[in-house]
Amino acid sequence: MKNIKVGVIGMGRIGKIHFDNLKNQIEHVEVLAVSDPFFEKNIGVPNITAEDLIHHKDIEAVIICSPTDTHADYISLCAKAGKHIFCEKPHDLSIDRVLETLKEVKDAEVNLMLGFNRRFDPNFQKIRSLVQEGEIGDVHLLKITSRDPAPPSLEYLKSSGGMFLDMTIHDFDMARFIMGKEVEEVYAVAGAFTSESVQEANDIDTAIITLKYEDGTMAVIDNSRKAIYGYDQRLEIFGSKGMAKVDNNKPDTHVLYNEHGAHGALPLNFFMERYTMSYKVEMQKFIQALIEDQPLPISGVDGLKAMMIALAAQKSVALNRPVTIKEISEEKVKNIS
Amino acid sequence: MKNIKVGVIGMGRIGKIHFDNLKNQIEHVEVLAVSDPFFEKNIGVPNITAEDLIHHKDIEAVIICSPTDTHADYISLCAKAGKHIFCEKPHDLSIDRVLETLKEVKDAEVNLMLGFNRRFDPNFQKIRSLVQEGEIGDVHLLKITSRDPAPPSLEYLKSSGGMFLDMTIHDFDMARFIMGKEVEEVYAVAGAFTSESVQEANDIDTAIITLKYEDGTMAVIDNSRKAIYGYDQRLEIFGSKGMAKVDNNKPDTHVLYNEHGAHGALPLNFFMERYTMSYKVEMQKFIQALIEDQPLPISGVDGLKAMMIALAAQKSVALNRPVTIKEISEEKVKNIS
Amino acid sequence: MKNIKVGVIGMGRIGKIHFDNLKNQIEHVEVLAVSDPFFEKNIGVPNITAEDLIHHKDIEAVIICSPTDTHADYISLCAKAGKHIFCEKPHDLSIDRVLETLKEVKDAEVNLMLGFNRRFDPNFQKIRSLVQEGEIGDVHLLKITSRDPAPPSLEYLKSSGGMFLDMTIHDFDMARFIMGKEVEEVYAVAGAFTSESVQEANDIDTAIITLKYEDGTMAVIDNSRKAIYGYDQRLEIFGSKGMAKVDNNKPDTHVLYNEHGAHGALPLNFFMERYTMSYKVEMQKFIQALIEDQPLPISGVDGLKAMMIALAAQKSVALNRPVTIKEISEEKVKNIS
Amino acid sequence: MKNIKVGVIGMGRIGKIHFDNLKNQIEHVEVLAVSDPFFEKNIGVPNITAEDLIHHKDIEAVIICSPTDTHADYISLCAKAGKHIFCEKPHDLSIDRVLETLKEVKDAEVNLMLGFNRRFDPNFQKIRSLVQEGEIGDVHLLKITSRDPAPPSLEYLKSSGGMFLDMTIHDFDMARFIMGKEVEEVYAVAGAFTSESVQEANDIDTAIITLKYEDGTMAVIDNSRKAIYGYDQRLEIFGSKGMAKVDNNKPDTHVLYNEHGAHGALPLNFFMERYTMSYKVEMQKFIQALIEDQPLPISGVDGLKAMMIALAAQKSVALNRPVTIKEISEEKVKNIS
Repeated sequence: MKNIKVGVIGMGRIGKIHFDNLKNQIEHVEVLAVSDPFFEKNIGVPNITAEDLIHHKDIEAVIICSPTDTHADYISLCAKAGKHIFCEKPHDLSIDRVLETLKEVKDAEVNLMLGFNRRFDPNFQKIRSLVQEGEIGDVHLLKITSRDPAPPSLEYLKSSGGMFLDMTIHDFDMARFIMGKEVEEVYAVAGAFTSESVQEANDIDTAIITLKYEDGTMAVIDNSRKAIYGYDQRLEIFGSKGMAKVDNNKPDTHVLYNEHGAHGALPLNFFMERYTMSYKVEMQKFIQALIEDQPLPISGVDGLKAMMIALAAQKSVALNRPVTIKEISEEKVKNIS
Repeated sequence: MKNIKVGVIGMGRIGKIHFDNLKNQIEHVEVLAVSDPFFEKNIGVPNITAEDLIHHKDIEAVIICSPTDTHADYISLCAKAGKHIFCEKPHDLSIDRVLETLKEVKDAEVNLMLGFNRRFDPNFQKIRSLVQEGEIGDVHLLKITSRDPAPPSLEYLKSSGGMFLDMTIHDFDMARFIMGKEVEEVYAVAGAFTSESVQEANDIDTAIITLKYEDGTMAVIDNSRKAIYGYDQRLEIFGSKGMAKVDNNKPDTHVLYNEHGAHGALPLNFFMERYTMSYKVEMQKFIQALIEDQPLPISGVDGLKAMMIALAAQKSVALNRPVTIKEISEEKVKNIS
Repeated sequence: MKNIKVGVIGMGRIGKIHFDNLKNQIEHVEVLAVSDPFFEKNIGVPNITAEDLIHHKDIEAVIICSPTDTHADYISLCAKAGKHIFCEKPHDLSIDRVLETLKEVKDAEVNLMLGFNRRFDPNFQKIRSLVQEGEIGDVHLLKITSRDPAPPSLEYLKSSGGMFLDMTIHDFDMARFIMGKEVEEVYAVAGAFTSESVQEANDIDTAIITLKYEDGTMAVIDNSRKAIYGYDQRLEIFGSKGMAKVDNNKPDTHVLYNEHGAHGALPLNFFMERYTMSYKVEMQKFIQALIEDQPLPISGVDGLKAMMIALAAQKSVALNRPVTIKEISEEKVKNIS
Repeated sequence: MKNIKVGVIGMGRIGKIHFDNLKNQIEHVEVLAVSDPFFEKNIGVPNITAEDLIHHKDIEAVIICSPTDTHADYISLCAKAGKHIFCEKPHDLSIDRVLETLKEVKDAEVNLMLGFNRRFDPNFQKIRSLVQEGEIGDVHLLKITSRDPAPPSLEYLKSSGGMFLDMTIHDFDMARFIMGKEVEEVYAVAGAFTSESVQEANDIDTAIITLKYEDGTMAVIDNSRKAIYGYDQRLEIFGSKGMAKVDNNKPDTHVLYNEHGAHGALPLNFFMERYTMSYKVEMQKFIQALIEDQPLPISGVDGLKAMMIALAAQKSVALNRPVTIKEISEEKVKNIS
């Protein structure tokens, strides 16, 4: 079986995770180059410019992990160079730019996968399987709890696009993935309770978002940027034949009973620890699909749709009323594939 | 210490629970009479008409467990007769009638307690204590899951006032009780998925209700009339210093591990089993407050306020927009104490 | 259906539990008298001497809850008076005295039930059912954890017969009840680690006891007189088709997550809280069996057999070797029915 | 910092785990060669004879993962060649041979680490920390449950040395590791219930083993070769200040509630999945200790001591009496360091 040859642009936190997985954990792939002007460690492959990497004659697929504001440009370059693309979320903060580059990707007949890694988490995979196998029956209700351990820096917040586009976007994708149908309308309430930097960035840090699907079923997401007890990632699905839920992962299973109570471990602290497995499986699936010439498990349109839910949530908070996805798409979008 | 002398009107399911608790579990109280034309068992106390019971010269307090459409009339009669009142929820389905009788109660200087028994459940009491002791810090978010094992009969549904007034009203009260502050605005999405009888009654059986409090914090309630796995009553509170949640009670703690998985018991089936303790404590607190001449732990106004949240939720579903409590009160109410 | 008429001897902690259950919770029974010279509260029935109670012409069954050293005498008197007997454990600390009175009971053709209340606990009942229904397959191994929150007083310890006869005897009975077969050999290791009073009483407070059954399967019990975190009562069964275990009961289901960890409630503190339900069901089954003229669910021989396991455990610790039940019975017993 | 250069002898299941960890997961180490005549895959390093590997001039440490009956010979060769040694358990089935090679290792001043990988499992590490930090207070009792999903083949069983030396040896080591003190006496009961091959091999598959430590405290281990629900690896520690326990790891956290009950995942199936992390950390600690010239975390004497507990357990079952470690050591050993 042939090996896929790839390059990684951006060797920050996520870039390094993908690089290590590609190098050590995944078969049938070779990393020919990385590109990161600020990364100096010798890791056994050349560190070249992004342009050179994209145009490297042996590289078939590019993993884009650079800062958000470069994603669309690199996608565009990759498309023109005929390279397949794995791009970390978000694609871009401008929906017009997203649409533009999606068109380029389509015209170039390359494949693009958005990095919604949580879809590959064993807990959420299990819930998805239970739904698909009919164990839940007709699904009536989905509940997602998604809380970060601490808000990002003010600097990050200012260029993040806001909590819905930066953080909740994972939950919006999950809401589509688990239910396997499209969101029609969004209502959100939100506040800024956790830090001055969030208020200074004019952002929110706490929200409850209600989603209505096209068939009248519903989902609710609750978010916080600051759960003092760690990274809280839970999900519950309810339907005519049953209910299933998944809890957080913990570093160990201990419970200590003393005179003050029964005490156990906190959840794994953040996405690096919690989603270790999902980052690995995500990249495996990307490589495997390229090798087998199969559709990628997550498309650029998946990214676009999650983004439109986020924009609807933003508008809902601003106007304090439910907002339909149609409203967003008619406003912002001419033609979505 | 003196004994309080009481009578019980209505010896259906709830009436019998209260009667047994008053007779066998609670000190300093004597049941002098019951009133139920359809109840024929000899339980050692006379079964007389409701009017005779209310006017019995030795009875100081009346426990009203008769059908909903008689509550307001009996409250009115009790007020006129100078008797203290414990009334099962709901007070009445008409907010005007509630206001009218609350005024009579106030003028007569008798005490009225509404039967929001869940406030006395050990799980919810624990959450309330954690909030009050500051263990949660500044509270940002409350989540309530409340699902019945099966919808009531079509006949019951038709006269129930709808799911929000009949079932969710307990959750609306809980949302006020746990947070200790007032709800300002309500948004609800709902559907009828579980049975034809719900659709025939033109009612709903599944809902997500978002509540905004006066200080911008928020709560979300999810309901179903039919959880095939039993009575699902959970709650979670989240704030700056931590998160606490309570789970369902189960009949036993067993887990069976076999080749198919790990299997445990389902939640206690319905309110009779789950809220056994809260019914007992509720009645103890009622009797104790009367003996010590203290304010009752739940007032008629508490019933009224939960009712207004329910009416706002109904209107929100009808109009698909958030509805303020003020809107309901200005519409329906002249002057609420 | 007729009512059984009973009397209660001894109104200490356990006597009061039984009295309350007989009076308020159990149907088809009347308490005609109690007997306790140190009990002065008016509870609506006469407080008479034990002899008068036993010979009361209308009393059919006697509930013996007096101090241990009176049990055998009262059993003997009841047998002579033709009264059925419910006796709290232990029957007597002398196996000869136990055998003597069991013979009197047999000759008098009255029924005797020993108060091994834990058999009626919902958790242990569930395990027993799983075994009987074949869910565990061939049972290979039973594990019992049984720890008290604190050792009794020195005075109590001195007349208790030692930990195995006083405390572990419940676990020995449980080991027979769950497995449904007889213990053949016992090996025990023990120590006195928890308090000076235990050492002063020349008793033990910590032990691991291995039981071999007649078919070669096995059980292990671990005990402590002092679990600082409360009353620890767990059990696990393992066999060819699966494993099942039961955990402690807790006062509520809360878990609090804060920056220090995840914190839950401790087990219910002691037998009064933990075994509330089993005391009630135990007495119901006693009354029901008398009414229906059925065998009592626990016999005097059950008490005798648990006692012989305890004596074997004592001897095992003394000699540091496994001790067979046959050895004990040949030593102490001429003929056991 | 320098890199340690190593070779791996034996590329079976465990050998491959260690090779992958050394190659991909652990820093400051290079694998220069492997040796396995039955391993044909190209993994980028030469596959040479064991003798050549041991005498390879650049190899500083040898990882021995070959069949048990070769361990002592390779240890001996490594010692003579001045190479540090990591050896999978067991060292050898003959205690005389173990002593002989330990002397050679000592004389050659090389370091030997036995592969008791479970010491590095995050759950057991947490328990060890709680004990060391005093959270348990004076430790009275340790309980270990250790059950395999299925017995090995008849062929394996015949050369395994028996369950105590092959499987329970991990638990004996754990009993020393967690308690931090030496076992003085052993009593074991055992049976063969799970398969005909176990009986044919004249081995046991189910046991309860009681350990007494030199200070009178105690431990109990229960084993089965066949837990139909998977690999069951739990531990509990009890002392004056509290109790702590660790449960199995599961592939996901889901619970499905349907009309039949609440259903969750089974434990991770076997040591490859459960102890992934402990194999990695074990090898990291080995390499790190070599680099820093520190004592290895597990010594050859640790292996010897676990082995003597196993021999005492075997003798206890054979004679049905407690057996002291002294008895074993005086019988088998002249001078143990």
